[in-house]
Amino acid sequence: MKHSKWKILSSEDVSPSKWFPIVKDQVELSNGKTLEYFRSLLEPAAMVVAVTKERELIFVRQYKHGVREVCLEFPAGRVEHDQSPLQAAVKELAEETGVHIHENQLTPLLELWTEPSKSSVRVHGFFVKDIEVVSQQHLEDSEAIEVVKVPISKVDELLVNGELHASDTVALLLYAKHRFPELLSTR
Amino acid sequence: MKHSKWKILSSEDVSPSKWFPIVKDQVELSNGKTLEYFRSLLEPAAMVVAVTKERELIFVRQYKHGVREVCLEFPAGRVEHDQSPLQAAVKELAEETGVHIHENQLTPLLELWTEPSKSSVRVHGFFVKDIEVVSQQHLEDSEAIEVVKVPISKVDELLVNGELHASDTVALLLYAKHRFPELLSTR
Repeated sequence: MKHSKWKILSSEDVSPSKWFPIVKDQVELSNGKTLEYFRSLLEPAAMVVAVTKERELIFVRQYKHGVREVCLEFPAGRVEHDQSPLQAAVKELAEETGVHIHENQLTPLLELWTEPSKSSVRVHGFFVKDIEVVSQQHLEDSEAIEVVKVPISKVDELLVNGELHASDTVALLLYAKHRFPELLSTR
Repeated sequence: MKHSKWKILSSEDVSPSKWFPIVKDQVELSNGKTLEYFRSLLEPAAMVVAVTKERELIFVRQYKHGVREVCLEFPAGRVEHDQSPLQAAVKELAEETGVHIHENQLTPLLELWTEPSKSSVRVHGFFVKDIEVVSQQHLEDSEAIEVVKVPISKVDELLVNGELHASDTVALLLYAKHRFPELLSTR
């Protein structure tokens, strides 16, 4: 079966807010049919799986209004226009957790698509080990973010007990365990 | 640190389309501040990790216009108002892949939140083993879905070669491998 990109015949900005950019596309499918399709055009994000020298994983806990739940996730944030995903990862880790690293300490993990049908979002996942938490967070006004350090030996319990739900966090955690078994082994 | 749900003071429908339901909430934070916040109110989804008697995993490949890429994912679909997540899982698996199962064959895996900041979406992940692909797909008009069976021994290659990007698919694949090592072991 041949899969080809839909051709965008025209595109109209129908965003209800600058915080929720949405376009209405008139598209042509590979079979020649046309249809109207709405998608959200959001910047990529960067997310970091960070392991301390004491063999702990660094999570952040905060309320997320989309699901109306308190979430435990890896530190992450938007990649701004003038940034690379690496730069965004370094900056967000520092702001949200007070951990300062250099770009060359980060290993790329996976690029994740969180809502491929409806949203352009791509999450660039990175891994860093042997870090130290030394300084303070620098948070924006609406961010009430708690830094949570979890010993590697306890991470499986979080999963089994249903305390991890964010799909990008679960995917990157398990991918990092799969790729670096010696670092993240619980045995 | 105490995390509490934001209180919704008022809520306005600002959907650009019935396919993209969005509300503008006026919310009160736990510190008493108020702000305006946009979120997308989407139905939950059900996704199935299905393993055949021949030790293959069943994926579907289709173009996704949000990211404008061809995606390899597990079969999934929306949970309709009159359905349970289990019922939706059974129905979508049949429609997208021609695999017919009973609800009691499904084991719940994880509930995933794909965009917890911006979207209400919850993905209910299920696992089923020992299945047979016997009949035809029943697809909607705009769905050009290819069923792809991948031997369990080849799935790690898909991951390492960057052929899997959908965050819910990656999360459920690795969680199923973690939880059922005897079934999904590649060795």
